[in-house]
Amino acid sequence: MIRDLSALFDPRSVAVVGASNVPGKWGYLLAEGALRGEERRSVYLVNRRGGEILGRSAYGSLAELPQAPELVVISVPADGLEDAVAESLAAGAKALVAISAGLGEMGDEGRCREQAIVARVRAAGAVLVGPNCLGVYDAEAGLELCSEDLVPGSIGLISQSGNLALEVGLVADEFGLGFSRFVSLGNQADIEAWELVESFAAHGPTKLIAIYLEDFRDGRAFARACASAGKPVVLLAGGATEAAARAARSHTGALASDLSAIRAAAVAAGIELVSSPKEVVDLAQALLTGRRPHGKRIALAADGGGHTVVASDLAAAAGLELPQLSEATRARLAEALPPTATLNNPVDFAGGGEQDISSFAKVARALLESGEVDTVLFTGYFGGYAHYSEEFRRREVESAEGMAEAAADTGLPLLAHTMYWRSPPAAMLRAKGVPVFREVEAAVWVAGRLSEETPEALRRVPDIPQPAEPLVAEADYFGAREILGSAGAPFGQARRVESLKEALVAAADLGYPVVLKALGRLHKSDSGGVAVGLSSPEEMSEEFTRMAGALAPPSFSVEAMAPLSQGLELIVGAKRDPRFGPVLLVGAGGLYAEIVKDVAVALAPVTEAGAEALLRSLRVAPLLDGARGRPPVDVGATARAAAALSRVAAEHPEIAEIEINPLLALPNGALGLDARIVLR
Amino acid sequence: MIRDLSALFDPRSVAVVGASNVPGKWGYLLAEGALRGEERRSVYLVNRRGGEILGRSAYGSLAELPQAPELVVISVPADGLEDAVAESLAAGAKALVAISAGLGEMGDEGRCREQAIVARVRAAGAVLVGPNCLGVYDAEAGLELCSEDLVPGSIGLISQSGNLALEVGLVADEFGLGFSRFVSLGNQADIEAWELVESFAAHGPTKLIAIYLEDFRDGRAFARACASAGKPVVLLAGGATEAAARAARSHTGALASDLSAIRAAAVAAGIELVSSPKEVVDLAQALLTGRRPHGKRIALAADGGGHTVVASDLAAAAGLELPQLSEATRARLAEALPPTATLNNPVDFAGGGEQDISSFAKVARALLESGEVDTVLFTGYFGGYAHYSEEFRRREVESAEGMAEAAADTGLPLLAHTMYWRSPPAAMLRAKGVPVFREVEAAVWVAGRLSEETPEALRRVPDIPQPAEPLVAEADYFGAREILGSAGAPFGQARRVESLKEALVAAADLGYPVVLKALGRLHKSDSGGVAVGLSSPEEMSEEFTRMAGALAPPSFSVEAMAPLSQGLELIVGAKRDPRFGPVLLVGAGGLYAEIVKDVAVALAPVTEAGAEALLRSLRVAPLLDGARGRPPVDVGATARAAAALSRVAAEHPEIAEIEINPLLALPNGALGLDARIVLR
Repeated sequence: MIRDLSALFDPRSVAVVGASNVPGKWGYLLAEGALRGEERRSVYLVNRRGGEILGRSAYGSLAELPQAPELVVISVPADGLEDAVAESLAAGAKALVAISAGLGEMGDEGRCREQAIVARVRAAGAVLVGPNCLGVYDAEAGLELCSEDLVPGSIGLISQSGNLALEVGLVADEFGLGFSRFVSLGNQADIEAWELVESFAAHGPTKLIAIYLEDFRDGRAFARACASAGKPVVLLAGGATEAAARAARSHTGALASDLSAIRAAAVAAGIELVSSPKEVVDLAQALLTGRRPHGKRIALAADGGGHTVVASDLAAAAGLELPQLSEATRARLAEALPPTATLNNPVDFAGGGEQDISSFAKVARALLESGEVDTVLFTGYFGGYAHYSEEFRRREVESAEGMAEAAADTGLPLLAHTMYWRSPPAAMLRAKGVPVFREVEAAVWVAGRLSEETPEALRRVPDIPQPAEPLVAEADYFGAREILGSAGAPFGQARRVESLKEALVAAADLGYPVVLKALGRLHKSDSGGVAVGLSSPEEMSEEFTRMAGALAPPSFSVEAMAPLSQGLELIVGAKRDPRFGPVLLVGAGGLYAEIVKDVAVALAPVTEAGAEALLRSLRVAPLLDGARGRPPVDVGATARAAAALSRVAAEHPEIAEIEINPLLALPNGALGLDARIVLR
Repeated sequence: MIRDLSALFDPRSVAVVGASNVPGKWGYLLAEGALRGEERRSVYLVNRRGGEILGRSAYGSLAELPQAPELVVISVPADGLEDAVAESLAAGAKALVAISAGLGEMGDEGRCREQAIVARVRAAGAVLVGPNCLGVYDAEAGLELCSEDLVPGSIGLISQSGNLALEVGLVADEFGLGFSRFVSLGNQADIEAWELVESFAAHGPTKLIAIYLEDFRDGRAFARACASAGKPVVLLAGGATEAAARAARSHTGALASDLSAIRAAAVAAGIELVSSPKEVVDLAQALLTGRRPHGKRIALAADGGGHTVVASDLAAAAGLELPQLSEATRARLAEALPPTATLNNPVDFAGGGEQDISSFAKVARALLESGEVDTVLFTGYFGGYAHYSEEFRRREVESAEGMAEAAADTGLPLLAHTMYWRSPPAAMLRAKGVPVFREVEAAVWVAGRLSEETPEALRRVPDIPQPAEPLVAEADYFGAREILGSAGAPFGQARRVESLKEALVAAADLGYPVVLKALGRLHKSDSGGVAVGLSSPEEMSEEFTRMAGALAPPSFSVEAMAPLSQGLELIVGAKRDPRFGPVLLVGAGGLYAEIVKDVAVALAPVTEAGAEALLRSLRVAPLLDGARGRPPVDVGATARAAAALSRVAAEHPEIAEIEINPLLALPNGALGLDARIVLR
């Protein structure tokens, strides 16, 4: 359901409840901000004590207003929030912003009070931001109902932390970026992040959505809103680690989402995940140009070899490729540079900039038009020539313009790092759509990030299917095998046995060598509950007796021996995240699994194509195609098993965790060697 | 041999050859800089054409000077360098700085000319910096013979790139740091980096040595100088990747050192490796305080939950630990903070800073004195209260001073990130020895870096032993086994065979199952040249016939089957780096080796204790102690084999590469399963 949020961002009238005449107080800041929009809308300041505030006579209550306030900002102590909300609704408010802290973030009692408030708001057809928030801002609508001092621009900011939003604002300002809208989320009692993403997506002046979020609420809805936003979404997700989760719980009552679920959502929805305010701004700079590379080839250029060397080292570490340049391109560079210059990639001007400052524009154009690279990055000494003289300054700014024009003409991303990132030439680059970075590592990081491409098959936010008939009880090993097997994940032959006699019969039946497993333990192999390669009745007897004595399991499984040395051991599993729903995980298995931590995640259910793309995104992917004299494995069959598991997970909300571990990918087919289901 | 460099940094007289009266020219900048030291020393400006320069009458040649110039700076075209050097030496110069470019960096001819110049300089008992350099600077001595505009301070800077030095200078200035000395290395024709490190080590005002270097020359000497410097060394090593090496070769004729060799040297010498100018400054800030943590426990604090959450996420990703705080510490925090504050780690003031700004100092002291953490990091909103009012500013600066005092009293590292990193409270923190970072990720990165500790056994720069009797020819597989075996690295039983008949005899002798290897190929297993687990004469015949047909090897090896499943496959190897000499590498082996890229390096030869520390630094280290139901392996025997290999590599300069791959670490002992030696 899409609700109308226009009263929130561009109300015809606004009231500030708790307006104050004391500078520094919240009620003062809000009143002051509201009055800055007075030309556009009626502004009413409300204070129980009446009197005069900022030169206007204040109203004693909302009931006294001459017209209905479309938007009411409430800055009263928590005790008074219910009354203020009731009065607002009675006065005809369509949108409320509750600054008041001390409710949901304090515990269960506060949460109940919040829910009651929300019920009233919704019954009245209104919407509420907060409580425990810092307000809202809309540049175009001249709405400044928050404590942040934001500069107008094209970033829409949604934040669950006031101070982080403030920092993003300060950093953005240093790079010449500003804000179209800002909403401080607070406790998200009514309006949640996903709803704002939808609203910002439809908001013309907002070209990019930046979000700080700890509590995702309906994670699928959030992912869906981001996927269909039609503009870049940069997400700083807080509280995805255990220590951070401790902080998150105590911060705004957020239950931290697991990072892997957030990653899965980011892949599905094309969300750019970052980890600091600086990264928000660095990436926003580049995304706002609208230019993305179509590959990992980068050309680096600088007037000074040291800078090309440092940038090359960083680019290589970021997985970017520095192709050698063709004779034709080198010839073109030679025209623009002195004979001592390096015409290879990276290009070193060797003082050429000082000799002819227009060489920056010429080199940029030669590289961008070469067709040999996907991104061009300038680093080091640029913008500094402007210090030499007025004439140098003028020509350096002109050269900057030429660089930007070359980028615009080719549509390729041109990035710049310069030591003089606040200089007039740097400002010209920015003005003409070339992001300018303060540190070379920031520029290279952005270049690497822009070059990452998510496979088409994974760029979708799947719907969660209707729940299937629930599993009646904790599925044991054989239950898990059966459920997964009938969904399409193949397992080898196995017999459940309880006595040595049964075990010997089963083994003879399956043919030695066999595997014996003690059932009923979570980590069978760690506790000595798995014996592989038993090649005779004697070995079977010995192992059975040992396990029975040491582990006393309720039952055993006797299984055909899998051709381990021919295959690749993988892990395929899914867990149900409280916010994002079922998430599929595939990863490297075997002895090194926990060392390598080579995993990839996706929102479940996943198609076969999606599962294959996921497998191919693993670091062990080269081994899928055969390596070190081994034949390639059957990736299709492996992907089918993973997709099947993801469907089971998606159809059974009662499954907390499900896994096939190991799943043996073989040259022909794939074979589950163990399975596990944990119900909630 | 330690040479006297005093004439280079604090000469009694200085001459500038090629002095110019044209602003912007090198000869002008140098003359201007030299004259700034006129109160301390005689300054002579030399120009063939004589005349007046900067108000002084210039000398037509060095021969005309009234006294010997201790230091001569030469800024003439390359063609005139030989004459200028000869005249300088004739005039009695003890130190020369050759700015002139166009020699060694242009190719072999230039290198030969350089060598001839250096021979003359050394014969005269003088020293030379450059050529192709940007000059020298010594703050205390008032020597400003370079183009950089440096602020005095405590960093000694050695750089092979002028523009990078300039950037380090600009960034350092933003953080209130300056320079005690600077030398632009240029081509290092005479004075090399290691010699300057020794000189800077003995230089009182220099508290930290920062280096940008592409060409390490005598890498061991460099490492040894850093190890014994007695002050922190921060190294930005350029050109360690392939693409960067291309740039390096064309830059100052540097042959790029391999990154792993540089890493090995850094570990041995306690050098801090960084990858950008910003990292140089971030780390220098913290190292200059002289306070290092003794563990990975960190406490985070901020006035605002979002900042604690983001910092916690970053800290966890950096491998830092956030311990829960004791009741006693929480009680102490409670006294300083409002009831809504989070008293756990991370500590969230929840607005407490605004209510009582001295809470920053109180919280800092409570955390630093707790004994429960090794580092304390404040992040977010601090320094901003100073904007509120003059009274707030005064009290916030006071609180900053209290924070710094708590750090000084406890001797523990206190780090601060603040959005207001240029504010008066931030300046107070810096002035009192608390580094202040601009980005939270920089602060956390530094905290993580400071907490890394190199095992004692690896903190040594070993001498390279006298060369042993050289190997006469390329050692083949059996030769490699023998050399390594007699050095102390154990191998399993193996027989060299040439015919099937011999193979069958050998297999019967060793007892089936056996391994058959086709010799004479670099990557046996990739080309189908290894057959494992042959269990009968029939299988042996079949495989032998196949290999003979497909690969036609000169000979074969028949070997006893190793207990693969009981052990852990590792790689142990060494290569001779042209700069740093023999370097030992240990790493994870087997199928995942190239995926995991889990390697650790050390300068060879390595002691057994060193090799064990190296093995334990691998990510697979947990598997050494047994995991997933496996027994622990014999780390001692594995380390002995690695140490033995490192000795062989160190004693044989003719060995380019040597390796045991795999080395099977077993519960009792270690077993080399394959070996290889490549001569230079």
